[in-house]
Amino acid sequence: MENFNSDYMQKAIDLSVNSVQSGGGPFGAVIVKNGKIIAANSNSVTKNNDPTAHAEVNTIREACRILETFDLSGCEIYTSCEPCPMCLGAIYWARLDKIYFANNKADAKNIGFDDSFIYEEIEKPIDKRNIKTIQVMRDEAIIAFQMWNEKTDKIEY
Amino acid sequence: MENFNSDYMQKAIDLSVNSVQSGGGPFGAVIVKNGKIIAANSNSVTKNNDPTAHAEVNTIREACRILETFDLSGCEIYTSCEPCPMCLGAIYWARLDKIYFANNKADAKNIGFDDSFIYEEIEKPIDKRNIKTIQVMRDEAIIAFQMWNEKTDKIEY
Repeated sequence: MENFNSDYMQKAIDLSVNSVQSGGGPFGAVIVKNGKIIAANSNSVTKNNDPTAHAEVNTIREACRILETFDLSGCEIYTSCEPCPMCLGAIYWARLDKIYFANNKADAKNIGFDDSFIYEEIEKPIDKRNIKTIQVMRDEAIIAFQMWNEKTDKIEY
Repeated sequence: MENFNSDYMQKAIDLSVNSVQSGGGPFGAVIVKNGKIIAANSNSVTKNNDPTAHAEVNTIREACRILETFDLSGCEIYTSCEPCPMCLGAIYWARLDKIYFANNKADAKNIGFDDSFIYEEIEKPIDKRNIKTIQVMRDEAIIAFQMWNEKTDKIEY
């Protein structure tokens, strides 16, 4: 485990500032491993027409490409804003060791981003959510899970 | 708003089954608009070394590329399994109208996937989460948000 290094957060902040100037969203992130920056990226939702292209997701994808793995254990993420639920989920799936963030979700809400709303939605029961969500055809779908369970040469993640 | 169409869910299920057979995770998704399939994809986390490459995220990215937008209002998603927090967040950011799912997060947990764990983590206060999460340098970071707020020609999303 590494110690906090303000240089990494300053780089994430610089990326967030540059992103505003170049037409992206005001967010940046850096992933480090063993005292070295592996990947650094900013939000490109509108530039790339990709609603999943938040700074953290872009940086996780870049780090995985560079390290040729889907498992970022041993890495830490510095992000200029508290991760939204999508990015927090991505951080868990990527198995990052630690999260440093600067602005928080209330700050994000204050400038018009839905992070807080999505946190509230996720905690609601499915039938109370804003996006109508309906379970269907579970009997037909479970076959893929049974196949996965029985597969002996699967790559788990 | 469209009516439920079992053909779309069957396609998502078929993708999940094919994915197991071809070395991916057991998940598939389809996005439809005005009675037409726009995008259909499966999980490729291990195949692409991308922990964000869940079926829903892959399908959202594909639909956005095809429709040349970051806003999928007017579209519905059929997914073979209840979205994990990352994918649910992606669905909210993409502004999809409706979610149909088949297997649920308990089914996913039964075959070794962390969806339920991540749902539990997101609902915890930050200082109680399994991945250590620390706020730093908010005073330095807020500048990007101020710049965003003051920018008159920004593309909001």
